[in-house]
Amino acid sequence: MTDNDTPSHSPSRRALLGWGGAGLALGAAAAGGAVAMARTDDDPAPDTAIPFHGAHQAGIATPVQDRLHFAAFDVTTDDRAEFVQLLKDWTEAARRMTAGHPVGEGGFGGLPEAPPDDTGEALDLKPSRLTLTIGFGPSLFEKFGLAEQRPDALVDLPKFAGDNLDKNRSDGDLCVQACADDPQVAVHAVRNLARIGFGKVVIRWSQLGFGKTSSTTPEAQTPRNLMGFKDGTRNIAGTETDRLKKFVWVSENDDPSWMTNGSYLVARRIRMHIETWDRTSLQEQEDIFGRDKGEGAPVGKAKERDEPFLKAMKPDAHVRLAHPDANHGATILRRGYSFTDGTDGLGRLDAGLFFLAYQRDVREGFIPIQRNLATDALNEYIQHVGSALFAIPPGVRDKDDWWGRTLFSKEA
Amino acid sequence: MTDNDTPSHSPSRRALLGWGGAGLALGAAAAGGAVAMARTDDDPAPDTAIPFHGAHQAGIATPVQDRLHFAAFDVTTDDRAEFVQLLKDWTEAARRMTAGHPVGEGGFGGLPEAPPDDTGEALDLKPSRLTLTIGFGPSLFEKFGLAEQRPDALVDLPKFAGDNLDKNRSDGDLCVQACADDPQVAVHAVRNLARIGFGKVVIRWSQLGFGKTSSTTPEAQTPRNLMGFKDGTRNIAGTETDRLKKFVWVSENDDPSWMTNGSYLVARRIRMHIETWDRTSLQEQEDIFGRDKGEGAPVGKAKERDEPFLKAMKPDAHVRLAHPDANHGATILRRGYSFTDGTDGLGRLDAGLFFLAYQRDVREGFIPIQRNLATDALNEYIQHVGSALFAIPPGVRDKDDWWGRTLFSKEA
Repeated sequence: MTDNDTPSHSPSRRALLGWGGAGLALGAAAAGGAVAMARTDDDPAPDTAIPFHGAHQAGIATPVQDRLHFAAFDVTTDDRAEFVQLLKDWTEAARRMTAGHPVGEGGFGGLPEAPPDDTGEALDLKPSRLTLTIGFGPSLFEKFGLAEQRPDALVDLPKFAGDNLDKNRSDGDLCVQACADDPQVAVHAVRNLARIGFGKVVIRWSQLGFGKTSSTTPEAQTPRNLMGFKDGTRNIAGTETDRLKKFVWVSENDDPSWMTNGSYLVARRIRMHIETWDRTSLQEQEDIFGRDKGEGAPVGKAKERDEPFLKAMKPDAHVRLAHPDANHGATILRRGYSFTDGTDGLGRLDAGLFFLAYQRDVREGFIPIQRNLATDALNEYIQHVGSALFAIPPGVRDKDDWWGRTLFSKEA
Repeated sequence: MTDNDTPSHSPSRRALLGWGGAGLALGAAAAGGAVAMARTDDDPAPDTAIPFHGAHQAGIATPVQDRLHFAAFDVTTDDRAEFVQLLKDWTEAARRMTAGHPVGEGGFGGLPEAPPDDTGEALDLKPSRLTLTIGFGPSLFEKFGLAEQRPDALVDLPKFAGDNLDKNRSDGDLCVQACADDPQVAVHAVRNLARIGFGKVVIRWSQLGFGKTSSTTPEAQTPRNLMGFKDGTRNIAGTETDRLKKFVWVSENDDPSWMTNGSYLVARRIRMHIETWDRTSLQEQEDIFGRDKGEGAPVGKAKERDEPFLKAMKPDAHVRLAHPDANHGATILRRGYSFTDGTDGLGRLDAGLFFLAYQRDVREGFIPIQRNLATDALNEYIQHVGSALFAIPPGVRDKDDWWGRTLFSKEA
């Protein structure tokens, strides 16, 4: 048994029926435990389970899965004990779902006269590398007497040039990032957490992402964003332990101590004016990015991974302004997804980039970089329409641990 | 060369750079032409190309792909010649994209001083079994002097019990159904058709679907809808030539003759009240569907594919009311997808089923079935919020043929 297995139980006929392919896939993952445990493997087979337990939460350095369902929640209960119990219940459900199990001990079902423990739409599906990552927003620290625990790094994000933020797509007391190679697995996970949280939390906003834009596996093909350009060529890789330690994980020397091994997540919904972009010349598109479109090579270079020569680019080129050398070394781990949410009232696709970036301290990561992008030539074609910041607590260590324990048991 | 290849051209360096993985994948598909041509293969590898040419349009009897981007367009030009040219341009673009090529002859690029011929985000992606299927809505026949060509079967759909239709998610002069195993490939296709149509057509509404709900390959695992139940167990299979002929394809004996080998498509956006459903007992859920949730077996039977005994089900059970035996044999080919479009203003997931059904005559297919579902117990948990009907013309026969030729060249 690997450490991401849940306690065994006597399978009923219903449980056997209900588990179907999921149980089979879990068996395979358990048998190939060495593979399943190796988070740094590049592009593991899509049916493997990602271990839920660890010093850090999965879903950050984990090789980026294909699909996203991200949800922000507001807390509606004012009962601290009830909220802590919800975090424990969510942890148990997350532990089961990431391993490919349905929620609940009784297969998906339970008693016929009660609602099923699991909503069922993922019963026959494989674990699909599902990760669930929880975060705590600034507004949570106004509740439950947590004000003194709020990290200094969990700032109120400043207003940036060009921001046009929709409050209904911003902020939140909590977030859950669900990533999986199968969208139905990610949607199922968020839905079941929402269901378990009924009466205690309510979804404030959510976002589906259909295509990863920034890989954390440099050996893999670099994905393209909806502007058609490769995105994330120089991203922090899940295997770069030193850069992760320096730029992503909160250290034990950082305050507060409950955040040790955690991180900070910036989420930005970036609408692209793709109809305008699509009528822009190839030369201008390449000037704006500072890379060529086909290969992704920096201006004047031949290959995607050649070292960029920033001064060869236009002063307002995106790559030039976002590069660590232009930002005193500031570096973030990007994990964004493309989105298309139908059409706006003017017949334009409501499409763009749901930007997700993890960093050790947002004051030394996203904030200075985004400020430097105020003169970015790309700004003519994009607009930030949603924004949120979350403190990402450390990982769940073992089957007795739970999401947020270091925060909530500190005062207990 | 297979018949879905486009004319060769001299590859420039940019073209070679730009094609990347797509070119490679096409090579593989061409080399394995026998596989790519066999539309009846079950679950072909996701990198194969589906032939664009044929008596029928692809995307109907084709094994259902994993993802959907569906778009309805309104025509804004009143110049018939311009519209016909657009149909020809769309056909050529569809021929290239379904084969895994970028739009345009010059790789993705073209001249640096002009907008690229292709938006680029699918450059490195495989064909992913992309199909593009066009349809003509009733309102198109009010334009271009087409009134007399309107099929009698292209009725104005009646109002059904419980309908709560949003005009902004209903109807349209044209539709394009893009299905692929990679959502970025489907989104890319719709976006490029919209781009090519700029100034002549405008997107009226669009819908992404992330999980197929009705398979047309009975050997494959039956997918589950967002209520957690298997959906489409008794669907028409892509291999059932006789049933397709009887229930799906317009015959040469049907009027009008330009529709021979075509079909009719009903699209309904069905919102599910999943939060309410999730609080319903397992017994009630199973009573409502008339199947058990785990295995999918009809009431009183052991296995999913056992013949249902309708009288064992409750009188208002969904399977009982939708069954051909309850509808004078009426049978439709379903090809729907689950959707989740974020959250409504009340913190509920905006989720459900985007129902797509193909049939030879909607008056003998969807309309009587949907009328019979007026007493469906499921209606407490669902609501139809969008609706459209389209005439699906026959397939494009060869590289000189184009979408809609049988309609538009008839009068020429």
